[in-house]
Amino acid sequence: MKKVDMIVKAPHFYTMQGEGVGYKSGVAMVVNGGKIEAFVDAATVDRDYKADELLELKEHVIFPGLIDAHMHTQMNVLRGLAQDSKNWMMFALQPFSNATTHDDCVKGSKVAIIEAVKAGTTCLGDYNEEIESCAEFIDKIGARGHLAQMFRAAKRKVYMPGELYEFDDEMGRREMKANIEVYDKWHGRGNIRILFGPQGADFLSPEMLLEAQKIVKERKTKMHLHVQQGDRETYQIVKRYGKRPTQFLDDLGILDEDLIAVHLTDCNDEETRQIARSGAGMVVNPASIGIIDGIVCPSVVFQEAGGNCALGSDQAPGNNCHNIIHEMKNVCLFNKIKYEDPEVMPAWRALRMATIEGARAIGVDDVCGSLEEGKSADFIAVSLNFLSMLPVYTYPMRNIVPNFVYSARGEEVTHSVVAGQVIMRDRKIQNIDEREYLEAIKECPQGVGERAFEEWDMLDGINNKYMREDKL
Amino acid sequence: MKKVDMIVKAPHFYTMQGEGVGYKSGVAMVVNGGKIEAFVDAATVDRDYKADELLELKEHVIFPGLIDAHMHTQMNVLRGLAQDSKNWMMFALQPFSNATTHDDCVKGSKVAIIEAVKAGTTCLGDYNEEIESCAEFIDKIGARGHLAQMFRAAKRKVYMPGELYEFDDEMGRREMKANIEVYDKWHGRGNIRILFGPQGADFLSPEMLLEAQKIVKERKTKMHLHVQQGDRETYQIVKRYGKRPTQFLDDLGILDEDLIAVHLTDCNDEETRQIARSGAGMVVNPASIGIIDGIVCPSVVFQEAGGNCALGSDQAPGNNCHNIIHEMKNVCLFNKIKYEDPEVMPAWRALRMATIEGARAIGVDDVCGSLEEGKSADFIAVSLNFLSMLPVYTYPMRNIVPNFVYSARGEEVTHSVVAGQVIMRDRKIQNIDEREYLEAIKECPQGVGERAFEEWDMLDGINNKYMREDKL
Repeated sequence: MKKVDMIVKAPHFYTMQGEGVGYKSGVAMVVNGGKIEAFVDAATVDRDYKADELLELKEHVIFPGLIDAHMHTQMNVLRGLAQDSKNWMMFALQPFSNATTHDDCVKGSKVAIIEAVKAGTTCLGDYNEEIESCAEFIDKIGARGHLAQMFRAAKRKVYMPGELYEFDDEMGRREMKANIEVYDKWHGRGNIRILFGPQGADFLSPEMLLEAQKIVKERKTKMHLHVQQGDRETYQIVKRYGKRPTQFLDDLGILDEDLIAVHLTDCNDEETRQIARSGAGMVVNPASIGIIDGIVCPSVVFQEAGGNCALGSDQAPGNNCHNIIHEMKNVCLFNKIKYEDPEVMPAWRALRMATIEGARAIGVDDVCGSLEEGKSADFIAVSLNFLSMLPVYTYPMRNIVPNFVYSARGEEVTHSVVAGQVIMRDRKIQNIDEREYLEAIKECPQGVGERAFEEWDMLDGINNKYMREDKL
Repeated sequence: MKKVDMIVKAPHFYTMQGEGVGYKSGVAMVVNGGKIEAFVDAATVDRDYKADELLELKEHVIFPGLIDAHMHTQMNVLRGLAQDSKNWMMFALQPFSNATTHDDCVKGSKVAIIEAVKAGTTCLGDYNEEIESCAEFIDKIGARGHLAQMFRAAKRKVYMPGELYEFDDEMGRREMKANIEVYDKWHGRGNIRILFGPQGADFLSPEMLLEAQKIVKERKTKMHLHVQQGDRETYQIVKRYGKRPTQFLDDLGILDEDLIAVHLTDCNDEETRQIARSGAGMVVNPASIGIIDGIVCPSVVFQEAGGNCALGSDQAPGNNCHNIIHEMKNVCLFNKIKYEDPEVMPAWRALRMATIEGARAIGVDDVCGSLEEGKSADFIAVSLNFLSMLPVYTYPMRNIVPNFVYSARGEEVTHSVVAGQVIMRDRKIQNIDEREYLEAIKECPQGVGERAFEEWDMLDGINNKYMREDKL
């Protein structure tokens, strides 16, 4: 009898092995040293293994931990302040984002991270101008972080419509250096990996983009980049270089397997295929771009061209939540609507995007995204004893995946385990007192509101009008 | 000092009075005899009123109870068995719906009703072939029911593509008589109203539709009707009468203020306006029709033409849940995408659809849909002390409605009150033991699955393929 750390017993395992969902039943999962050691016959596991912890989940289904590949958690302090508006960034978001202190951002970030974890996300693709505080908190919880610090050379000032951004490469290099410092300190510590995060092709000179790529390749990590994320970016790149962003990035040599390409909002189908063929991964953020732009980004075209695509929740001011289960439902529904075809983007494909396909897209499939021997033990338990998941069919077809994707809300996730450590048990995150962070964020609105008022009032956006009209 | 039944204290009330959201703060709501008696200054309410119950909700927002205007709760036993499929009804749903017993349907219905109530729905627009069991259970819980029994004259048999349905008016009249009987027994009892539910213009002869309308008008109730719900209906009506369903119904005199027109899936914009101008109400079911057809139904056109539109969750095999908060987010996002315009369908409009506008659409605005003196005390309390609702801003703009619509999941609803009776308190439905019904539905899958197998296997739909390919 072998002594191991953990045995997980449950009636259903979705391992995501193979080309489908890798369904297994009648098995137990053996975990040792933070890794999945074996799937063995549930009837004989107790004969062959003795575990420090038996996780016996009798009415549950086990999935790999979910991956949220693109989040700006430090914008969470502004949840619900920017939506239903054209020109989202300037007219809705900016008065508030200009009014936040770093302390506000950190308080908000922690609540966003808790929110994501409680809805089943175990791997967080956070992307902020300051990322170390996120690394610290994700590490404290015990989740997996796949984090990029955002940097740019374009000066932060108000530009007139049509005006080219002014580059300050010295500032850009200072910010890039800060990304290197956080890489040196955090990469490989706990479950944290650090990527490099140039903000977009329009925000840096070609020289700096190449420098960033060199740093990425030397360190064997990834570049996390907003790619052709809207007409404003396309305008800047076309005016400056005489070609559209995808072609610009391709000519520069940035499109390759070390790139995580986020959004592709303004890509046509051929540009989308060009990026997919390069080996880059994609992250699609359905609800965020739906709210901000009314656009369904081209993940289906990307996948048909052989690319891997992950899901992201983006940010709370314009989504307005960090719940990757919602994004699974959204990506299915939005694409069915886009193509007027109910067979486009079935539930199992969305589940793959939140697990193994997403892991491949962002380059964490060596450690997670599926439940396989030798991989990290990153998994969640979802209770089937819930209004949203009942009744459970296994014959003649299983309805568990469709109900998880189309009906679950997040509260069904009872346990989360990362690298063999139980980080959430019976809905309680183990290493923190959640209430403390909920209380802390309540202190922020007064100061943010007061500092934002003048610019918000001057811009007179649609939410200002809605306040006057008693519509908020 | 006046003695009353209840005083409700909370920091925020969304009364839905006026053209916006009717926001009130610093007030208390006084309830007596099941009705809203007054909104009074929170500082002085205790001086003027003494209540049997003080409902003090310090970190909550009060909304009118939500309205789900179109549900087939008796299909809930088939949750997750029919989606991601073309020709949903024939290839995905039918093998399973043919395999249910009435007992299965009733068990499923109860779970669906509980699910809806726990996500803030207080008024349920249920529509099944047998409605009395739903009336009984809704009455037991204490919620409001707005129920129609579905009837048809088209024989229930397998039709060849292109074949006209065969009418059996005698069968149709028997079924219509059953609707009259349930009306006579239940209409006006507790919080139950009974409507009349011909299944669709294609399923009855014109004579029977007119008979049904006469019965509706004599009884001062409403006709609940699927209207131009797809190309199959349009085909039948065009072939039989040489015109499309909307024109057929208009010429027959069915389009008027006593009609609740559901779906309008196949209506063009002019037909949509024609229905709106008639004074009929509309019910849009975003996620259901998104999953089944990949279509965004024309609620925006209907509203622009002056019509009132309610939201519905439709059915669990093809949605796959009964959560009207999800439908609020869906109707916003789907229409932003349809029109590629983030300003289309803002959060406040979706909230009106789930409350006062929905109440007008289905004709219950005399009793509910807004918090006004003299109306029934139908309201819900939503906790703001939740990850999905934090932080709360009131200055310079409120973010409560956007976060309720775009971020809340249902679990934030702590209390539900209907006609002054607390039907859910701290997430516990008062008059039933929820677990009993969750256990009961678990008995159904085995029998349904066995009875469905042969037809399901013979049809060999996409979910059959997905089972073979390990994608479920």
